[in-house]
Amino acid sequence: MELKDYIRNIKDYPKEGILFRDITTLLKDKDAFKLAIDKMAEQVKDKKVDLIVGAESRGFLIGSALAYKMNCGFIPVRKKGKLPYKTISEEYALEYGTDTLFMHEDAIKKGDNVLVVDDLIATGGTALAMIKMVEKLGGNVIGSSFLIELEELNGRKEIEQYPINVLIKY
Amino acid sequence: MELKDYIRNIKDYPKEGILFRDITTLLKDKDAFKLAIDKMAEQVKDKKVDLIVGAESRGFLIGSALAYKMNCGFIPVRKKGKLPYKTISEEYALEYGTDTLFMHEDAIKKGDNVLVVDDLIATGGTALAMIKMVEKLGGNVIGSSFLIELEELNGRKEIEQYPINVLIKY
Repeated sequence: MELKDYIRNIKDYPKEGILFRDITTLLKDKDAFKLAIDKMAEQVKDKKVDLIVGAESRGFLIGSALAYKMNCGFIPVRKKGKLPYKTISEEYALEYGTDTLFMHEDAIKKGDNVLVVDDLIATGGTALAMIKMVEKLGGNVIGSSFLIELEELNGRKEIEQYPINVLIKY
Repeated sequence: MELKDYIRNIKDYPKEGILFRDITTLLKDKDAFKLAIDKMAEQVKDKKVDLIVGAESRGFLIGSALAYKMNCGFIPVRKKGKLPYKTISEEYALEYGTDTLFMHEDAIKKGDNVLVVDDLIATGGTALAMIKMVEKLGGNVIGSSFLIELEELNGRKEIEQYPINVLIKY
């Protein structure tokens, strides 16, 4: 089974000139979904991981299933106003301007070993913001895992001080 | 282990007078998270389930892990403009006015057995919209599963024609 065959390519979404990699066709296939999560777990099987951190919303889809598989806790990172308790935050760069991500201030204890997860790494801004928040709370970032990497955007340069795991490259 | 002990109660969120049930404290505890997903799977173990449908964003956290555990596919239901391919949609009632949820038009094949999942059932509007979309595409709704039910809002009356599974009641 070739996981890439389960990714749907959509032209001009969300805007002209962008070729969007749609993971919903992988998620709906039970065998492809299971294989993707199992392979992502396999890539970090030698690491001690206490917590997985993932960003809304597609990061939840991959991160939560992976946390279940690896028997870790899961920490959601969200946009403004979406987390109910006290938060820390981190700005990250968009194509034009910036946006901000939030994490509960008690999400991570000092010394927790944390894997940062997302469905896709593009410019690396989201992953870097997650890493910064984990470190602000005293967590050890043991690496990052992505289902997909868009290599030409070279997001990995932002986070290359930690091991990066990827299943599908474009 | 009492799962209710892992839910954090937050007063006056998202607005005054609301007691918010925060599941992030359950998700970050690996044992509580695993137990919750395992118990939700146990509640439907006698049913044939092909697909789990869940709504963004908290429904992704529960639904995706449950789909992995049960070896099903997962179908994300999202807000406007968030799904990249052709969609169907369903309006649902909010406290004031309405909102609309979307599902990919090829998410479900005729005859697929579908479990509708969310973190919480309040008024039942989201769950009913998900059920309507599954049926529009020819899926068989075999029931719904929620981590939490807010009983006083009586959302179950909206969807009681199908079996309803709940772990934690308030």
